[in-house]
Amino acid sequence: MWHYSPPLRDWRFVIDDVLQAPAAWAAMPALAHCDADTAALVLAEAGKFTAEVLAPLNGPGDVQGCQWTAGEVRTPDGYAQAYQAFVDGGWPALAAPEDAGGQGLPHLLNAALNEMLASANHGWTMYPGLLQGAMDCLYAHATGTLRERYLPKVVSGEWLSTMCLTEPQAGSDLGLIRTRAVPLPGTAGSAEPAYALSGTKIFISGGEHDLTPNIVHLVLARLDNPAHGPAPVGTRGLTLFVCPKLLPDGSRNGVHCDGIEHKMGIKGSATCVMRFDGATGWMLGEPHRGLAAMFLMMNSARLHVGLQGLGHLEVATQNALRYAQERLQSRAPARPAEVPAAGVDPVSFHPAVRRTLWRLKARTEAGRVLAAWAAQALDEQHGHTDAAVRDEAGHRAALLTPIIKALLTDLGHHGADEALGVWGGHGYLRDWGIEQVVRDSRVSMIYEGTNQIQAQDLLLRKVLVDGGVRLASLLAWASAQCEGSVHAPAARSSLQLVGEAATQLKADAANDGELPFRAADAWLMALGEALLACAWARMDAVASQVLAAGEGNASLLQAKQATARFQFTHLAGEVPRWLSEVAAARHAIEFLPDAVAG
Amino acid sequence: MWHYSPPLRDWRFVIDDVLQAPAAWAAMPALAHCDADTAALVLAEAGKFTAEVLAPLNGPGDVQGCQWTAGEVRTPDGYAQAYQAFVDGGWPALAAPEDAGGQGLPHLLNAALNEMLASANHGWTMYPGLLQGAMDCLYAHATGTLRERYLPKVVSGEWLSTMCLTEPQAGSDLGLIRTRAVPLPGTAGSAEPAYALSGTKIFISGGEHDLTPNIVHLVLARLDNPAHGPAPVGTRGLTLFVCPKLLPDGSRNGVHCDGIEHKMGIKGSATCVMRFDGATGWMLGEPHRGLAAMFLMMNSARLHVGLQGLGHLEVATQNALRYAQERLQSRAPARPAEVPAAGVDPVSFHPAVRRTLWRLKARTEAGRVLAAWAAQALDEQHGHTDAAVRDEAGHRAALLTPIIKALLTDLGHHGADEALGVWGGHGYLRDWGIEQVVRDSRVSMIYEGTNQIQAQDLLLRKVLVDGGVRLASLLAWASAQCEGSVHAPAARSSLQLVGEAATQLKADAANDGELPFRAADAWLMALGEALLACAWARMDAVASQVLAAGEGNASLLQAKQATARFQFTHLAGEVPRWLSEVAAARHAIEFLPDAVAG
Repeated sequence: MWHYSPPLRDWRFVIDDVLQAPAAWAAMPALAHCDADTAALVLAEAGKFTAEVLAPLNGPGDVQGCQWTAGEVRTPDGYAQAYQAFVDGGWPALAAPEDAGGQGLPHLLNAALNEMLASANHGWTMYPGLLQGAMDCLYAHATGTLRERYLPKVVSGEWLSTMCLTEPQAGSDLGLIRTRAVPLPGTAGSAEPAYALSGTKIFISGGEHDLTPNIVHLVLARLDNPAHGPAPVGTRGLTLFVCPKLLPDGSRNGVHCDGIEHKMGIKGSATCVMRFDGATGWMLGEPHRGLAAMFLMMNSARLHVGLQGLGHLEVATQNALRYAQERLQSRAPARPAEVPAAGVDPVSFHPAVRRTLWRLKARTEAGRVLAAWAAQALDEQHGHTDAAVRDEAGHRAALLTPIIKALLTDLGHHGADEALGVWGGHGYLRDWGIEQVVRDSRVSMIYEGTNQIQAQDLLLRKVLVDGGVRLASLLAWASAQCEGSVHAPAARSSLQLVGEAATQLKADAANDGELPFRAADAWLMALGEALLACAWARMDAVASQVLAAGEGNASLLQAKQATARFQFTHLAGEVPRWLSEVAAARHAIEFLPDAVAG
Repeated sequence: MWHYSPPLRDWRFVIDDVLQAPAAWAAMPALAHCDADTAALVLAEAGKFTAEVLAPLNGPGDVQGCQWTAGEVRTPDGYAQAYQAFVDGGWPALAAPEDAGGQGLPHLLNAALNEMLASANHGWTMYPGLLQGAMDCLYAHATGTLRERYLPKVVSGEWLSTMCLTEPQAGSDLGLIRTRAVPLPGTAGSAEPAYALSGTKIFISGGEHDLTPNIVHLVLARLDNPAHGPAPVGTRGLTLFVCPKLLPDGSRNGVHCDGIEHKMGIKGSATCVMRFDGATGWMLGEPHRGLAAMFLMMNSARLHVGLQGLGHLEVATQNALRYAQERLQSRAPARPAEVPAAGVDPVSFHPAVRRTLWRLKARTEAGRVLAAWAAQALDEQHGHTDAAVRDEAGHRAALLTPIIKALLTDLGHHGADEALGVWGGHGYLRDWGIEQVVRDSRVSMIYEGTNQIQAQDLLLRKVLVDGGVRLASLLAWASAQCEGSVHAPAARSSLQLVGEAATQLKADAANDGELPFRAADAWLMALGEALLACAWARMDAVASQVLAAGEGNASLLQAKQATARFQFTHLAGEVPRWLSEVAAARHAIEFLPDAVAG
């Protein structure tokens, strides 16, 4: 009953018409080898793989889950074969640079792939989920034999990788990390000084599994080496290490999986407790600079988590639509002119369901444009020939990343939760698939930095610190996207209000240092909603233009125009709603008296 | 780690101070036997039973679930013993009339009991969940031997009961029910004419289990008896039957459990597919008047479902509070004056978490007042000596019931989902308990009439039909509750805006018959939020009064005042937000083009 149809038509509309990406690629030497036809081919293949190989494993993997026995983890039936097909298809290397053995394709196509992976099977996708980040990290920091030994295997996907940050006492606060690294005697003077890592890491996705023979752990630890001076306390005293499951001689390293978690969702993904028991590791990057090195992984990971939210929205939307069109229940108060009255109507005719369906559709398609904008900014940041454009694109990507992570995972989870209602009581049953999406999607709001942390990152570290320069640049860019739509004035007015709110917050924060922390969540959502409105203005403009030229798929383009109309009527309250929360945040929030817990 | 502390102090504040219920009981003959001390005793015992007997079974029951084997259902370990303790404690009969063998205690105390049951163990609570409704139904409609045979057993809880409405093709639309009842030959002239029932019912909570020897099914079916004329099509042609698992002679009736559902939550509750295979049943009430008879069950069931939402909110809130006060993570931007600065603070100091905790607290405590108001209205409706007061109370209960069902289940699920974030990644793990509440609470938004159906019931059947008389009466009553609080003007202004929106909807509906269907959900939420504001104005007024008199628990009362301040600053945007959605509903929602599903 549950199905997944890759949104190929929609992605092509975004890439070709909304972003006009092929023309942009042609102007970037590193991406000039990719054109619209290549993109269409990659999308079609990605759609085929996700729909045919991954989607059928989604429900069964949730029911079966992972099995832990004496340190070994067995993934659900079919996961290993699917992973082999993923590697054989060259998917891990899609956006990796060609000089690292990758295909050097645009991040934009990688974004489409990641959305499809999450739609089809979020649990499975956790295993290769960190490959891109690990690749980026090794590409930037690994040298010598370390690079030779690990980069190609990670790029090809032959070995999977993890990101070992969290410890029981150190979640959002990585400054509390206690895992230690001490120099291994006898290797200090060598070309490859090694360290012994000791400590416990939790929430390690794919810390142990049966998909690849080796697993490359990237581990944050406190360096305990007199030669490098004392490790500063807090996050400034962390160093990054590469610590493989199997040592270069093939023997087992001192890395142990002590158990896996029982979770609300993504049950096919092994979330491991990892014990490093004097495990051998090698430093990646500079001593005490581990967090900066790791942030390379985290930013790419954050965009991908945002794409998970989009994937959840997409698959919930398309299934809700189909069910609502097939399920007959009660007579609707109105029906399309061409449909004769009957005793019962499809639930898609009922006003409350109709609103839900349009809302899901409006959020999904605008969220896709938002994510595509960020991916295109990454492509420009790395590949544009003009340094000023590269710079501006980099700033845009930096601002868009936390918005996409927080906004799209929020819409993904709450959208799936709302979609469940379309099935009525059936939505609550495992058989129909939607309840799994609700469970799976909740974690995306938490990991890779909770959505609250994204909001602080955006407002406190990126918006209020530079005199508003980067924000102004983003708003101007977004405003330009609205050109040519009847909805441009509404979208631009939203942008302006959000910009003014930031100016006001900056001014008020002078007398109330806590204010930005209280206002950050709502302000991020306000900006995110304003950008979704811009995405609809842009899609509307493009659809009108293509229709006027008598080109394109008329029914698709007319549906875009209709959805834009829905956005600017039924969703027009979103930006004001969040801005009213920003205004409310100017009131203090008292500390909770002990009495309330008694 | 998960815990449940019954909110006894808070319920006593609501009963004694906010509602001044003991004085009201004293004036009602049927309730005069209940005073403040009796109430306190009942609350304390209910708290003890729920916290000590039911809460420990909640997590394990979720993991173990129910087992179906060849038509028999095994409930999780400990469920049967807990049910026996429930019966021994006299809990099923709490609010049943004394002439039916009940204790005749106020619905208000029954409401407190039901909140606690849901907080402690929603899954288990499903089994006795329909006893009250079945009791009401049998009390009102069963006569002769039918009454003698079934009413006492149901009142005592010796036999459990079900409500068999839904069929595969008939969910929200009961007019599509196909189960048939034909006269059993040879019984037509007898004192007890019997019928043979045939059909399949789904989503039957407790349709089969191992808690009681017999199960009393109340079944909606189409009567096929020439003596009563043809059954009209739709909901007007349904008749209610009593159909027990065991026949009076002890033999097995033709009622079979063909399977149980795998659900998102409430896994300890057996949700059964029931096949009636020529099962013997007896008519309850009049032919073709089954839905009206059943609605007696449904209204009481709807209030109880609203109380489930409250129970979810309460237990999520108290656990989030405790975790947030114990978990140390990161340095907060500010801390209470008396707390020295440290490297890490409890997460309860962090602004985003602080806001979540206050929001949960504000919603829980006002939701409790709202539910208590409805329960008190039921008590007055049935027991007041003045017919005019009974009438007005009945109308108030009729309006409050759908609001409480929809609003509190919405706040319960979304509140639990928000609370999960307080635990960060730990919230996603089964171990911490909160993810179960998120899963369990989702169903309360769906069953006993989806929240969309509640909204239509409220706006279309109760508000727009009588010239606004009942709504005006409710608003005047709610406005009077605000007396004596500094927040009264704000709360009253919200009431007025919601009332004006209804007037406007009525006027606009003349030219747009579908408008009320589009606006109903948001309008219900707006009215619900306005009533929550009134509840806070009332609590603030009471707290100020008791404090001024130098009485009461000062820290509790000051916390009430502080929460009222939070309500009227940080939650002041809720009514405008929903009214803006009501306004947006004036725009048409187009029918979805087939293209969007392609």
